[in-house]
Amino acid sequence: MKNELKSWKHVFKLDPDREIGDEALDRICMSGTDAIIVGGSSGVTYDNTVELLSRVRQYTVPAALEISNEEAVVPGFDLYFIPIVMNTSQGEWITGHHQRAVKEFSHMTPWDEMAAQGYVVLNPDSTVGKLTGAQTNLDAKDVAAYAQMAEHLFRMPVFYVEYSGTFGDMDIVRKARAQLSETRLFYGGGIDSAEKAELAAEAADTIVVGNIIYEDLERALETVPATRNGA
Amino acid sequence: MKNELKSWKHVFKLDPDREIGDEALDRICMSGTDAIIVGGSSGVTYDNTVELLSRVRQYTVPAALEISNEEAVVPGFDLYFIPIVMNTSQGEWITGHHQRAVKEFSHMTPWDEMAAQGYVVLNPDSTVGKLTGAQTNLDAKDVAAYAQMAEHLFRMPVFYVEYSGTFGDMDIVRKARAQLSETRLFYGGGIDSAEKAELAAEAADTIVVGNIIYEDLERALETVPATRNGA
Repeated sequence: MKNELKSWKHVFKLDPDREIGDEALDRICMSGTDAIIVGGSSGVTYDNTVELLSRVRQYTVPAALEISNEEAVVPGFDLYFIPIVMNTSQGEWITGHHQRAVKEFSHMTPWDEMAAQGYVVLNPDSTVGKLTGAQTNLDAKDVAAYAQMAEHLFRMPVFYVEYSGTFGDMDIVRKARAQLSETRLFYGGGIDSAEKAELAAEAADTIVVGNIIYEDLERALETVPATRNGA
Repeated sequence: MKNELKSWKHVFKLDPDREIGDEALDRICMSGTDAIIVGGSSGVTYDNTVELLSRVRQYTVPAALEISNEEAVVPGFDLYFIPIVMNTSQGEWITGHHQRAVKEFSHMTPWDEMAAQGYVVLNPDSTVGKLTGAQTNLDAKDVAAYAQMAEHLFRMPVFYVEYSGTFGDMDIVRKARAQLSETRLFYGGGIDSAEKAELAAEAADTIVVGNIIYEDLERALETVPATRNGA
C-alpha cells in the first residue's frame, strides 16, 4: 500500500468528528477517488474513528488513517500516515509526540503500513497552524528547501503542503514539487471547485479534498474528474 | 561512501578547534581506524576545517565532515554527516538550522554525499546537551523508540547515541541497537581505554573515539585493536 500511494492523484479526507450521511458517504466512496484519508485536527477519538472506518470498509476504496492522536489508532486501515510538521520551532510536533506513541506501542508498531508525511503548514489562522506553532511566513525557496529535506534527509514518502482552509500559492507548490523525485507532493487546502482541483492537480502530485465534502457535496464530487484534467 | 559506513567499527573524531601535532595525526590516521570524522560542538570554522582536512588528506583513511556550522562546510570530504537532534523540544536542532542551510546551498547540495544522523544526546552537562536543550532523562525504552523512528520514520543511515564526555549505559545502547536492521548505531562518549572500547564495541555497531586523542594518545590508539575484540 505504501507503494500504491505513488499512483494517487486525488483523495478525499474525511473527518471523524463531522457528520456524513450514508448516501453522501456512498457517493464519496464510489466517486472514483484514489483513496480515503481519515483524519482531523481536533475531536478525533477511537470511537468516532472506528465508526467511520466500519462504514468506509463497505467499499473497496483504499482507506488510510492520518494519526493525529495516539489514543485514536484504530486497526484495520490499509495504511497509517504519521504527520511530522517540519516548519515549527516546537519539537513536540516533529519528534516529541511520535516518540511517546512509538514507545507505547513498542513492538506492535506495523512499520510496513506506516508512512511519514513531512508537513509544511502555511495558513497561520488554521487550527493546525495555531496548534503546532507553524512558522508560515515562507517563500517558494523556503518551501523548496523543506521539500529537499523531506526527500533526501528524511526520505519520507510524502511531502505535504497544507494551506488548510484557504487555497494556496500554486507557484510555491510547483517549485517544491520540482525538487522531488521519490517523495510525492500532497497538496491540501481550499479545493472547493472543479477549477481549483484542476489548478492544484497541475501543480501537485496528489490533491486532498476535505471541507467542501461537508459544505457542498456536488462540488466536492466534481473535483474527481477535474483532477484527471489537471494531472 | 554512504554504503561504506556500514562496515565501520571504529572511528576517530577530530575537532578542528583543537591542536594536534603532525606525529600524533600520523599515528591516528595510520592506526587502522575505519574513518576520521571531523567535527566539534564549538569553535568550528571554515579555516580550521580546511586546515585539518588538508592534513588528513595526506592519508588514505576515509574522511567525513559532521556539519555543525553551515559556514564551515568545506568541499573535499568523502562524506558529510548532518546531525539531527531527536530528543529536544527545540525545533531549531531538528529541522530549523538544516532548512536554512539547504535553502542557502540550494541546487548545489550534493545529496549523494550527505548522510543524516539521528542523535540522542544523553549527557545534560555536555556542551552539545546544553546547546540543544536535549531532554536527557530517558530510559532504555525511550531511546529504543527513538531508534525505531530513526530507522522507520526518517530512514536515517545513522542513529547516534551521544554521551559526550561520560561513558554511557551500555544496556541502553544494546537495547536501541536491537531495534535496528538498516540504520547503524554509532556510540560516542567517554571511551578512554581499551576496556571501554571493547565494552562499547560489543553494544554498538560503530564506536567514536574523540577526547582521549588530545589527552592520552597511547590510550586512544589502544582503542583500535580493542574494538576488534568487542565487535
